This record gives sequence, structure tokens and C-alpha cells, in this order.
Amino acid sequence: MLYVSRKEHFNAAHKLYNPSLSKERNVELFGPCANENWHGHNFDLIVTVKGNPDPETGFVVDLKKLSTLIRAEVIDKIDHKNLNMDVDFMRGKLASCENLIVEIWRILNEHLPTITAHGKLHSLRLYETPRNYVEYYGE
Amino acid sequence: MLYVSRKEHFNAAHKLYNPSLSKERNVELFGPCANENWHGHNFDLIVTVKGNPDPETGFVVDLKKLSTLIRAEVIDKIDHKNLNMDVDFMRGKLASCENLIVEIWRILNEHLPTITAHGKLHSLRLYETPRNYVEYYGE
Amino acid sequence: MLYVSRKEHFNAAHKLYNPSLSKERNVELFGPCANENWHGHNFDLIVTVKGNPDPETGFVVDLKKLSTLIRAEVIDKIDHKNLNMDVDFMRGKLASCENLIVEIWRILNEHLPTITAHGKLHSLRLYETPRNYVEYYGE
Amino acid sequence: MLYVSRKEHFNAAHKLYNPSLSKERNVELFGPCANENWHGHNFDLIVTVKGNPDPETGFVVDLKKLSTLIRAEVIDKIDHKNLNMDVDFMRGKLASCENLIVEIWRILNEHLPTITAHGKLHSLRLYETPRNYVEYYGE
Amino acid sequence: MLYVSRKEHFNAAHKLYNPSLSKERNVELFGPCANENWHGHNFDLIVTVKGNPDPETGFVVDLKKLSTLIRAEVIDKIDHKNLNMDVDFMRGKLASCENLIVEIWRILNEHLPTITAHGKLHSLRLYETPRNYVEYYGE
Amino acid sequence: MLYVSRKEHFNAAHKLYNPSLSKERNVELFGPCANENWHGHNFDLIVTVKGNPDPETGFVVDLKKLSTLIRAEVIDKIDHKNLNMDVDFMRGKLASCENLIVEIWRILNEHLPTITAHGKLHSLRLYETPRNYVEYYGE
Repeated sequence: MLYVSRKEHFNAAHKLYNPSLSKERNVELFGPCANENWHGHNFDLIVTVKGNPDPETGFVVDLKKLSTLIRAEVIDKIDHKNLNMDVDFMRGKLASCENLIVEIWRILNEHLPTITAHGKLHSLRLYETPRNYVEYYGE
Repeated sequence: MLYVSRKEHFNAAHKLYNPSLSKERNVELFGPCANENWHGHNFDLIVTVKGNPDPETGFVVDLKKLSTLIRAEVIDKIDHKNLNMDVDFMRGKLASCENLIVEIWRILNEHLPTITAHGKLHSLRLYETPRNYVEYYGE
Repeated sequence: MLYVSRKEHFNAAHKLYNPSLSKERNVELFGPCANENWHGHNFDLIVTVKGNPDPETGFVVDLKKLSTLIRAEVIDKIDHKNLNMDVDFMRGKLASCENLIVEIWRILNEHLPTITAHGKLHSLRLYETPRNYVEYYGE
Repeated sequence: MLYVSRKEHFNAAHKLYNPSLSKERNVELFGPCANENWHGHNFDLIVTVKGNPDPETGFVVDLKKLSTLIRAEVIDKIDHKNLNMDVDFMRGKLASCENLIVEIWRILNEHLPTITAHGKLHSLRLYETPRNYVEYYGE
Repeated sequence: MLYVSRKEHFNAAHKLYNPSLSKERNVELFGPCANENWHGHNFDLIVTVKGNPDPETGFVVDLKKLSTLIRAEVIDKIDHKNLNMDVDFMRGKLASCENLIVEIWRILNEHLPTITAHGKLHSLRLYETPRNYVEYYGE
Repeated sequence: MLYVSRKEHFNAAHKLYNPSLSKERNVELFGPCANENWHGHNFDLIVTVKGNPDPETGFVVDLKKLSTLIRAEVIDKIDHKNLNMDVDFMRGKLASCENLIVEIWRILNEHLPTITAHGKLHSLRLYETPRNYVEYYGE
């Protein structure tokens, strides 16, 4: 069993703001992250796939195909976007890394079988800054 | 003559959008960076001060004081902000790194004498992403 | 279940020296790390908390509160300090990363409930240099 | 139980080319990585050993000895080499990271008992580029 | 006057080998870098352009156009290639970073006017490894 | 004219303490950096040599020889040492980066002719932390 990983990045605006709460409560909960006019980040996303290598290629998954899949299904929908306003799969959700990573898992997990018969999605790691990140293993 | 540098960072939203041009022309010029609802970055700012050390301290400038100055006069005004909407000194200007770095120079150059008698502002480097950055030497 | 992580750093002096052994044996075991007059490092500490997000905030733990806690309970006691001489919770222990990380776990694990009802301490990673690090999962 | 890690690096040439397939099929499978005249990388290898610390030294494994072992048994055989042509333990195998990491595991796992009675090989991580890497846990 | 920079990367094989010298002299001069069957690197290339911003765009040079130009004229000719065997503009030259950077300068300097009327090529920096790099200012 | 650079690193303890001043004045000037029992850093040192390449080797300076020289004349004297107590060339001087870089320049400038007829010392950059560094050009 091998674990292969690919890192992609995207730049996006967001704010942490729960619309069911008052403005005061949002500022209390989220501080400067609740800034009404948004702020933003260079996000890094690491996608890890596990499995046994294909004997013909030595690949668990072709990392070029994995990169293309991540870009088509995830990055193109969030890069240079506003996570609160522009992203279909985040509509109605708090634009936090915790919620974003769960949605990215759902998307990649659905599409991964189109590029590999040997690999399964193992984990995602999403960096909001070099010092803050979140990981998800699908459960 | 020694050159001492301090790196600070901030997270901000912006869009590249020239309001004197049509939406179509903006998209043509700036591509996804013109996204109406903004995007954002983790910016890194490196401030370099040059001079001869103070014999008592060995410092051209005390880097703790330099850090405090940069935070008070620059970072606090742009961190977790929208560069197009929230920043007084960027009002009426295209929110590009090129314009931002010139304004940051103006501010730091004015305040630097309050913390050092020996150092002069030498250069600024502003990273928008790890692969794109701009530098300014004040002229 | 989500895993959220925060990286903090500190600068400290230490030496690897077991006072119950001879100087010769210490040099044999620890080489230049046993240098009588100490050496030092820029340490990086990554703290990972796991749990289910709070529905109101989307947070497993508020990373700002986590950062404040790590600084108050750990960093302030070891930053710009001598790990052999200045740190109460290291007294009588070899000032190795292996011992330090176990003590940091004990402290953070005790204080974490004061800032989150949803998260538990999952792991610590302590970098002594970019090429040497140690991890601990509490058992 | 503690996990200690050491990072080493090496520079090597390789190509992804399965000699039992046609040139066309290789290009189809591996794209530019199949370039007949090779290409190359700065590889990073992270070796993680787990165990309980030795009471005398506080070490699971002496990282200096681990570094020396990795260099003698692995790095010296692949650094500034061609992975397809110059490396005995890769002969007859596709020169992929997936195959390379399994061979490195075999070698280090065999030699680790010569430098530690307390530590066992836990995992390897092999970076081909800062954005592509593979991990192996020995099973 | 502003200085804007863009970082690109490529992976290539090479060896340091002067064909007008004996094999023994090559090994004496270049050590493991002379390995007959090549080795390789992940190279990073930083291109810096200086000039005054265009009033309409705020750009000295559009970094997207600069990236496209670098990729079309330089990266596509050296990425996943053997610098000694596959690269027209390196033929007959020692495949060192020093020679490569001078050739890259010649190419980019010739093509830069096609994408900017305001910017001139200021400098190139070429990393062979994170610890070894060379810079060139065109003279 | 080409500029070639080599990065080396060392780990050392130091304190910023001017013995001609009172303890109170030292704490006032240097804050936690004046901690009586020292603290420490992982320092990075970048050495840049400029010149025209040797036609036989393509080198301004052989970076392996440069690395060996830096280690023999500088790193071996400060790595795993106390900059205030253990280093001959720092005796009687405040153990600041500003003073250290001037001493390193003096040493390397004296020894560089032993390894290159084509290169001259151009600059040094000394990182105390990833966010604080000092540069020196020899005048």
C-alpha cells in the first residue's frame, strides 16, 4: 500500500460570517476574519491517494491526471473567487476551511474512479496560511 | 554599511479593476484577477533598512521596533481587509502590488526616523504569491 | 472528524548533557550537541487538535484561541530561554526534543478544555531544525 | 511512543519508461517523463523511526547515526546517479518513486537494528518535487 | 522604477563534462557532477523586469504574459529534458548553470519587447538546488 | 559578470548583552534577547561570489570548494557553539548578527583567493530567523 500526494494552490477571498447571527456576535466569534468586505488567502491543497501500484505503470494514480482532475473539479471553481459568493458548492455554508475541505472531499471522492482503478482518496490537507491548516480523512 | 531586513505578512482581498474602463476591458486586461467579487492572498512584506550600527547596541535599527512600526503603520491598516474598499491610502488607486508598495514606502519612509537615527529605508519587497513579487527602492 | 493545526515557533538554547554521566561519556553520546556552553535553535511547534466542528462557528477549535493558549502556557516559558536552566517543567530532565515534546503535551492537554468543548489534542510535531523533528500522539 | 524523523536529499536523473512496452505506449503513459534522454530532480527523503526513548540518552534513535546510515546505505548509491542505469537495487524495475521508496524501505529496515535497539522504521516520505511525493509504511 | 519578478521551475538532467578534456580531468574538476550517465535537478528560475508602470493597468509587465513567454521560449525547451543532449541553444556548451543562465538571458531579452513597452529585463536568478544558485544582470 | 551563491547553516547560542552597560540597560535595549542564560537560533548564511567564469570549467568558483572553505573557516568555529563565549573572532564584541557578518566577511575575503582566481566576494546574507536577516557588501 502506497500513499501518493499532489499539492495544488488557489487564491480566494472569504469572510467568516454566520448570517443567522448578529453582526456583533460575528465579530465576537470571528474577529478580523469577519471583516464585512472580505479578506483572502493563498490556499494550498494536498490530495493523498492510497493503493497498490498498477504493474504496467508503477502508478497508484497518474499524478498528472490527478492534478488535471483537481484543477477541473475543484481549483477552477474556487481560484480567484469569493468563497462566500461565487462557489456553488459552498452556498448556504459558513466559508470556513473546515466546511470547504469536506466539500472538496465529496467532489474528489466522486470523481477519483474516473482516473484510477487502484487508488482511493485517503486524505486532504488544506493550508489557509503557512501556520494554519486542516485535514480530513472522509469520516 | 549594513542592510537589515524584517519580514511581516498580511492577508487581504483585492481585485484588479480600473473603474475608468469597461467591464469587458477590465476582464481583457486582468483576467481572473478582475473577478467582480474579489479574490485574496497571503502577502509577505520584506522591509530593508541600511546604515551604520549604533556603537551602543550594534543595531542599524532595532528589529523589534521596526516590526512594531510596520505593524502599527502598515499591517494593521491592510491585514484582513479589502485593499479596494477598506484602505484609506489606496483610495482612488488600482489595488495592484505596484501601487501598494509605493504607498507602503511613503508611510514607512516618513515614520522610520522615529525609531532610528542610523538607518534609512533601502528597499521593500512585496510577495503576492510565492511566485510573484515586486520590489521598490524609493525612486 | 476534522484535524486542525497551528504552527508556533520559539528560539532557545540547550545542550544535550546527562549530568549523571562523565563529560567524556556525554561527548561520546551527544557529540557537538554536548557543547558545555550550549548552542541553540529556531524551534517550530505544530499542535493538532481533532474533533467535530461546532455548528455555530464551524470550528473544532478557534485557532486564534489555540495560538493564544500555546503562547501563554508554552512559548512564553521557553522562547528566548535556556531549556536546561530556565524552564521549570524541564528541570531534572535531559533537554532533548523527545523530553520537551512530552512535557508540552502534558501542559496543552491539561489546558485545551478551557478553549474547546469539541476538540481533543491529537498530536504535536516539534522541529529542532528543518531536517530533524519529533512527533508525539500522547501515548 | 515517539516518532523521530530525519530529512536527507539527493539529486538524480531518471525516466519513466517500461521497456516491455513500445516507445509510443511509453509516451502515452508517461508523457514528458518518458523523455528518452532522461530528466532529473532534487529528491527529498524523510525517514521516520518510532519507539521509546533510551533512558540514558533520551533518544529513540541518534539522528546523527540515522543520517550516517541513510547516507551510507541509500544516498551514496543514488545521489548524482541515473536511477535507471546506475543503481543496483533498481535494476529491472521501473524507475518510479513508488518502486524506489519500497527498495529504500527494504534497505533501511534491514540496517536500522545496527544503530538502535529502541526504534523501528515507521514510514518513509519521498519528494520528487515540492508538489509530488509518495509515502510508504512497509506494508 | 519598480522591479517585478516571476518564478518558474523545470526539471532536467545534465552532467558537468568538458568533452575537450580527458575523463580523468573531468572527474577531477567536477566530481560526482561528471557522472557519465547524468544526474538531475528541480531548477527554479526567477525573472526580474524593471520599469515604470503603465498608467492604464498599473503593470510594469503583465506577470501572466511574462509567465507565458518564459514557458514558451525557455521552459518548454528545457523541462523534462537533458541539458547536454536535448537543448539546441546549449549545444557545444558545458551544461553548467553559468552557461545556461546567459543563454536564457539572451532569449528572454530578445522576446521581452513583444509583451511590454515599459519593462526591461533586469536580472535572472537560477537555483540548481535550494543551496546553490547563480544570478546574471546581462553584462 | 556572474554572481554565484552558496547557502550554509549553523546552530548557535548567543545573547545580546553589552557588558559595559548595566543589566537594567541591557534588558531595556535588548529585551528577551538579553536573557542571561542565552537563547539560540538556526542561522543560515548565504555567500555570494562574483566574477567571470573560468573557460575550462565554466565556474566563477567551484561551489564544492566554496562550501568546504566556508565550513572550514567559518562554520566549524561557530556551529553548535556559544557566540559570546566560544568564538575567538567574536571575543570582546557584542554577539549581534551585524558584528558577526562583518567578521565572517573578513575571514572569507582573506581565504577566497585560495580557491578561485576568477571570483571576488560580493555579499553575505545572514538569517537569524526566517524573518530577520542582515546583509553586508564589504564596505
